[in-house]
Amino acid sequence: MTAAAFPPALLDALKALLGDRVSTSESDRAQHGRDQSRHEMHMPDAVCRVLSTEEVAGIVKLCAAHSVPIVPFGAGSSLEGALIPLHGGVSVDLTGMNQILDVRAEDLDVTVQAGVTRKQLNAYLRDTGLFFPVDPGADATIGGMAATRASGTNAVRYGTMRENVVSLTVVLADGRIIKTRSRAKKSSAGYDLTAVFVGSEGTLGIITEVTVRLYGIPEVMAAAICAFPSVDAAVDTVIQTIQMGLPISRMELLDDRTIEAVNAYSKLDLPVTPTLFFEFAGSQSSVDEQAEIVEELAKGEGATNWKWSKDADERAKLWQARHDVHWAIRAQNPGKVGFGTDVCVPISALADVLRETRRDTAQHSFSTTLVGHVGDGNFHLGMQIDPEDPDELNQALKVYDRMVERTLAAGGTCTGEHGVGIGKMKYMRAEHGDAIDVMHLIKNALDPKNILNPGKVLPA
Amino acid sequence: MTAAAFPPALLDALKALLGDRVSTSESDRAQHGRDQSRHEMHMPDAVCRVLSTEEVAGIVKLCAAHSVPIVPFGAGSSLEGALIPLHGGVSVDLTGMNQILDVRAEDLDVTVQAGVTRKQLNAYLRDTGLFFPVDPGADATIGGMAATRASGTNAVRYGTMRENVVSLTVVLADGRIIKTRSRAKKSSAGYDLTAVFVGSEGTLGIITEVTVRLYGIPEVMAAAICAFPSVDAAVDTVIQTIQMGLPISRMELLDDRTIEAVNAYSKLDLPVTPTLFFEFAGSQSSVDEQAEIVEELAKGEGATNWKWSKDADERAKLWQARHDVHWAIRAQNPGKVGFGTDVCVPISALADVLRETRRDTAQHSFSTTLVGHVGDGNFHLGMQIDPEDPDELNQALKVYDRMVERTLAAGGTCTGEHGVGIGKMKYMRAEHGDAIDVMHLIKNALDPKNILNPGKVLPA
Repeated sequence: MTAAAFPPALLDALKALLGDRVSTSESDRAQHGRDQSRHEMHMPDAVCRVLSTEEVAGIVKLCAAHSVPIVPFGAGSSLEGALIPLHGGVSVDLTGMNQILDVRAEDLDVTVQAGVTRKQLNAYLRDTGLFFPVDPGADATIGGMAATRASGTNAVRYGTMRENVVSLTVVLADGRIIKTRSRAKKSSAGYDLTAVFVGSEGTLGIITEVTVRLYGIPEVMAAAICAFPSVDAAVDTVIQTIQMGLPISRMELLDDRTIEAVNAYSKLDLPVTPTLFFEFAGSQSSVDEQAEIVEELAKGEGATNWKWSKDADERAKLWQARHDVHWAIRAQNPGKVGFGTDVCVPISALADVLRETRRDTAQHSFSTTLVGHVGDGNFHLGMQIDPEDPDELNQALKVYDRMVERTLAAGGTCTGEHGVGIGKMKYMRAEHGDAIDVMHLIKNALDPKNILNPGKVLPA
Repeated sequence: MTAAAFPPALLDALKALLGDRVSTSESDRAQHGRDQSRHEMHMPDAVCRVLSTEEVAGIVKLCAAHSVPIVPFGAGSSLEGALIPLHGGVSVDLTGMNQILDVRAEDLDVTVQAGVTRKQLNAYLRDTGLFFPVDPGADATIGGMAATRASGTNAVRYGTMRENVVSLTVVLADGRIIKTRSRAKKSSAGYDLTAVFVGSEGTLGIITEVTVRLYGIPEVMAAAICAFPSVDAAVDTVIQTIQMGLPISRMELLDDRTIEAVNAYSKLDLPVTPTLFFEFAGSQSSVDEQAEIVEELAKGEGATNWKWSKDADERAKLWQARHDVHWAIRAQNPGKVGFGTDVCVPISALADVLRETRRDTAQHSFSTTLVGHVGDGNFHLGMQIDPEDPDELNQALKVYDRMVERTLAAGGTCTGEHGVGIGKMKYMRAEHGDAIDVMHLIKNALDPKNILNPGKVLPA
């Protein structure tokens, strides 16, 4: 659908609903046509900035009547093109829905509008002694994180959005509004609609409110970083830690090239070698106990330079550096396009898959970096591609195919936390087999006109 | 459908597939026509004892061709009539599928056939240092537990089947076999089919294999029991414990009448007053720390008689007594029919809902007992009804209606862990509103002929 084909009657109706919060300006459309990924821009025909669930429902009803696509837009931080309006239509910008509606400290949950970002929420919670742990790299919206089934560095202890979304308010493809679930801590009352919409990337409904779990800020937190002679040695330390069942908060691997980028970007002087970032949390005795065991394990794998940091500011600086890896790598590779990947394997297969993948990338001209939420078996290999060199992109695509093939053979998944979007649709049949047909049945049942984020997640 | 209407050609085809593992005997049909609930028996026309996923697929294809209902059967321990073949047809008995297929200690998961029971699995795991925590009262099958989204006393720490099922093998309504997910610890690769089938009670597909998470057996475990002057005092202790975020393993409330029944059945001599059962687990220092804090909280609420038990045998005896509550109550009420309930509320509402519910039951002639997984806000009020007195049943039904109304008003659910089955369908619209229509869309998409456990979960 091109701008010319966008029904004038629909535009008029949208303007009647939203006034000047409907835009068809080139700059607004361009801003809503791309994300943080390598995927090509496609502009929506119109951008609608919404302030309420009812407005979203109104837009959906209008678009449904005209069979025009609708794509939700949050922080714009997708890494797989999930928000790109492949077939034009309306981009529904939810960032104006940024109200924190109800903090229920007693029940350890909070309800927010979908446009609230994770940092905004945690800033708001600061005085309550509670926090929301799910932390993708970007300051994403809670709605976008739910739609992507996102996670981050805290998942090894607190789980992903799958485990942390209690319930959702969703606008269906016909404009009806539902709540997916009560606020009870557990329930066996029918189908798990929360889970149906979490991770559906806007293809089954538009998430407008989210209730998530909160946790008490641990009494004591401490960080440690530790340099290893090799990626293998670091991974072996991780595997032993997980298998001992230690309630470690974070455990992140950065390879030597990534450390180089981080040093430059975040003004650090870490030894340029594969490095694990740890965070321990709990009571003082529990933190001491965990750290002692992990230090022992790391040293057994030849680690040197085990460094503690109990100081809150230093800890925050280290973890900010970890969160800024994406920007550090981009800063170090001006003019290149970052080709991100996101496989996740059972931890028993992690060392092998990493070793073979690194052996593969070593054959190629482009620079690669490795960052891993290794406690979950999830890692991101980033390839820095010259956009003027089609051969590099081709090679990267082949590296990617082989990495996913290796991952699936090991019982893993093509995406741990970034979502399918556009880039991973081609792996879905290999990963899921006939289960893809069940996904199609659900999609067709919930969005029979295929107006919700068409062309995403499910291969045709 | 009556036995007379069961297609002879279907029976012949089933016999050709399964030989003498097809039965139409009165005793087999009766055994597969009832569960542990108050719900009326309905017999299947035939019972098929299966040994493989492929056999289940074969049965489903045959039944689909004849539009004959199929109901899966495990341990027969449903408390809501989930397994009762309301419309006759074939009861697929999965208890012969009792193989433990693959323990992956490194990945902390195991794949089992659906007929493996939770006690069988834990006995098998004994030497690995690992265990599977989900523990409903009965020695249920893992397949049945997945289908019911079951939980039990360990849920407060380890979660329910929702959190502990990694993936499923499912036979669809057309006989196709799918796997719902990879074994990766986290994934954003498309719709969460595992969650779609967990809790669907055999209405969307038949679960034949289950991969579940395992956990390291904690270094130290200790139990405590503590007598309280009132249910309110016990609940206040629970609420404070949860809000402090203590990683407590179990926290169970039994009221005075229940303690009376437990004393008689399990040969104990606990003080006959509202009582909390606690379990603490972790390292020695963590267990000591938790127990000290909770003892302090309990004493602040007027608790007396705080009793420790670090001895494994004594601990096992106490928790067996807790698990046998269902039988203890039945033994104490000969000739009565137990009317079980299973609401779950946000913990901030627990004290109020319990108080009002107990005030309500106090007005009635029948005996009531209260057992609660109170750390999750989940409790079971049991009413012991004279089956010869229709007025008692009527009164119980009204108590139940009012309890659910109170629960929903407080943001809770009509079933925390027993499932909807037959008895709670009437509450589903009040709990879910229009979201019920989404459940219907999914049901119609996955089982268009309505042959999978028809008449359950979703109200017409």
